[in-house]
Parts: sequence; structure tokens; C-alpha cells
Amino acid sequence: MIINIGRQLGSGGREIGEKLAAELNYAYYDKELIYIAAKQSGIAPELFTKADENGQNKFPGAYWGMHLPYTNGLMPFATGLDNDSLFRLQSDTIRNLAEKGNCIFVGRCADYILRERTDCLNIFISADTRQRIKRLMDYEENISIRQATEMMETKDKERAEYYNFYSGKNWGRADSYHLCINSSLLGIDGTVRLLKTIVGKLME
Amino acid sequence: MIINIGRQLGSGGREIGEKLAAELNYAYYDKELIYIAAKQSGIAPELFTKADENGQNKFPGAYWGMHLPYTNGLMPFATGLDNDSLFRLQSDTIRNLAEKGNCIFVGRCADYILRERTDCLNIFISADTRQRIKRLMDYEENISIRQATEMMETKDKERAEYYNFYSGKNWGRADSYHLCINSSLLGIDGTVRLLKTIVGKLME
Repeated sequence: MIINIGRQLGSGGREIGEKLAAELNYAYYDKELIYIAAKQSGIAPELFTKADENGQNKFPGAYWGMHLPYTNGLMPFATGLDNDSLFRLQSDTIRNLAEKGNCIFVGRCADYILRERTDCLNIFISADTRQRIKRLMDYEENISIRQATEMMETKDKERAEYYNFYSGKNWGRADSYHLCINSSLLGIDGTVRLLKTIVGKLME
Repeated sequence: MIINIGRQLGSGGREIGEKLAAELNYAYYDKELIYIAAKQSGIAPELFTKADENGQNKFPGAYWGMHLPYTNGLMPFATGLDNDSLFRLQSDTIRNLAEKGNCIFVGRCADYILRERTDCLNIFISADTRQRIKRLMDYEENISIRQATEMMETKDKERAEYYNFYSGKNWGRADSYHLCINSSLLGIDGTVRLLKTIVGKLME
């Protein structure tokens, strides 16, 4: 089974994905790990060489032409590849990883990229605004409530634009996913346990 | 605990609400039952008298100035009350019913009306388009796929307009609810069992 997780910034979606993967003994891939897998796969090596030459390999997010997690301001393209080429490279990588066995993808439109498969569970994680702000302020150093709020709005807008553009679906809308959960309801660990229960039911 | 359920037309949300109420031994209220409760409560009796005189009491939905379930075309107002007065009457009724004990409300912005309570679980039910069309065609007699599709679009648009106007939230968006489930994932009975499990976790 493949589990694809979309999430609001600060909802704990990534942590839920990591913990669920550990519980289920699934592989776990987020943006950075998909990047590393793409690099190791030998697809378009010139992309990675060029990027490394530019000395930006400490910021793999920039290679996707996307924002780094929890960071405002677009990173410049290091590759010269356009958005669509990057999306295709990333899509090939996600499809290859999915072929290898049970895994969890966080973000990157993986639900759409893997839409032909019948073994996907597509999930969206939200959380109460107050808890999202608190999580961001715990994660980042020295940001104000106002800055955290702005980051949430900016990042969610970007994620929605990216997802809606490539998938033709609506980011964060119930009918784009099998299941949407507000992580404030049961907490991070409670949400992980619930999802584990659901995966168990689906495997019966 | 109070469970509020929003749902796409044809998603099985009402059936899920009824079955979950039976499983949990909760009271169950949808539009028609809220209407009956309002009538019995003695609030604004002139509203119901006037409506009965008009001979429309076989269509209680019309008293709310809203569409009947699964029916296109607005019913005329039988009451002379404006939308906001109807919404207030309905809100008072929902708050009174919630005071009486554990119950499930389907539709009517009950999640918003009861937003001050801390014992609400707010749920949205969606379903795959093909299954929604099939459910509508099983329910209504002699409608085509095209008519079923139009009913879905029209009714969902109305529900969204009503919900968004009164609640200031977004109908069908993940962050308006605690939990959104596509009923095609586990089926009607599987979804009911899952929700029962979740209510059990919340009551621990």
C-alpha cells in the first residue's frame, strides 16, 4: 500500500507521516528524500551536477524550484530546468519509489502522480490555527505570532497553487482525498494510531 | 457528545448519520426532524400554522425555504419569514436539542451553530463521483446520469452557499471539520464502524 499525505504548514503532517511509517514499517519520503532518491536514480545526472557546482547542495529544496520547509522567499533555480521538467523528473522518481513496495509520501502531489494505482490511501492533515502557530514557533527560532501566521498563509497558498496546477484537483478540499484529519482532535500520536487502525481495516 | 455531519449529495452521509446514531444510541436529527422539533417546541407557532394552512405540510423542507432532499428547484416560502429569521429559529431548535443529550445532526450548519460547545465532533462525508451518481439513480426514479450529475452540482452549490454564508467557513474544506471521510473507501457500514471507533477513542 502507498500512503500519500498532504498537509497544512504546522499541522504536524510530516511528523505523522514519519511516525506512521515507523509504526507500519513502511519507507518514508518527503521532498528532501525524493530529491536524494532522484539523484541516486541516475535520471538526468546533469541536473544534480550543475546544482552541486553552484554550491547550493546544502539546500536541496532549491533544486525543485520550490520553497524550503518553513522558509519564506523563493530559492532561485539552480538547474536551468523549467517547472514542468522538474515536475516530470520528480514524478518519475515517485513512481519508481512506489514500485519498490509499501511507502509513505509527504507532499509533492504524489496522490495525483500515482492516480493510476489502486493501492493508494490519500490523506490530508490540518490542525487548529492556534496549535499550528505554536508548532511553528517551537520549530523556528525567534519568530512572532504575526510572522508565524504569515508563514502559514504564504506556504499554504504556495502548496495549493502547486497542487491545483499539477493535479487539477483542489488542495485541502475533502473531495480531493480519502480522509482528512484535524490533528488537534486526537493529537499527533492519537492520529498516528487512528491511521494505523484504518490501514489495518483496509488490509483485511 | 454532539456529532455534526455535513455531506455531499449522494455520499451516503445521511445513512451514515442514521446508522451511527443507532449504533451509539444517540438521537438523530436531519432537516425534517429539526423541523418537527421546532414545531413541537412552541417557538413561533404562527410560522407553522400559516404553513399548515397553505397545505404544504407534506413538504416540511419548504418551511425552511430550502430545497427538499434530492429535488431540483426552490420550493416557495410558505411562511413569509425571511432567511435570517428561519436560520435563527432553526438555530434555537438545534441548541435546545443539543442540550438534551448525545445526538447527531445532519446538515443545517449545526457545527457552526454549536461552535461554543466543546463536545462537538464535526464530520464531512464525500464519495467517489461514480458512486454518488449510482446512489442518486437508485434513490430517485427514472433519472439519467446527466440529470443525476446536474442534481449533484446544483445541490452541492446550494449547500456550500448556505453553509459559507452563515458560518463564514468553507463547506467541504478539510479545515472546516475535524474529520472528512470519503465513504467509498470503507463503504457505508465500514465508515460507520470507523466513526464508532473514533467516538470511542474520544470518550476514553
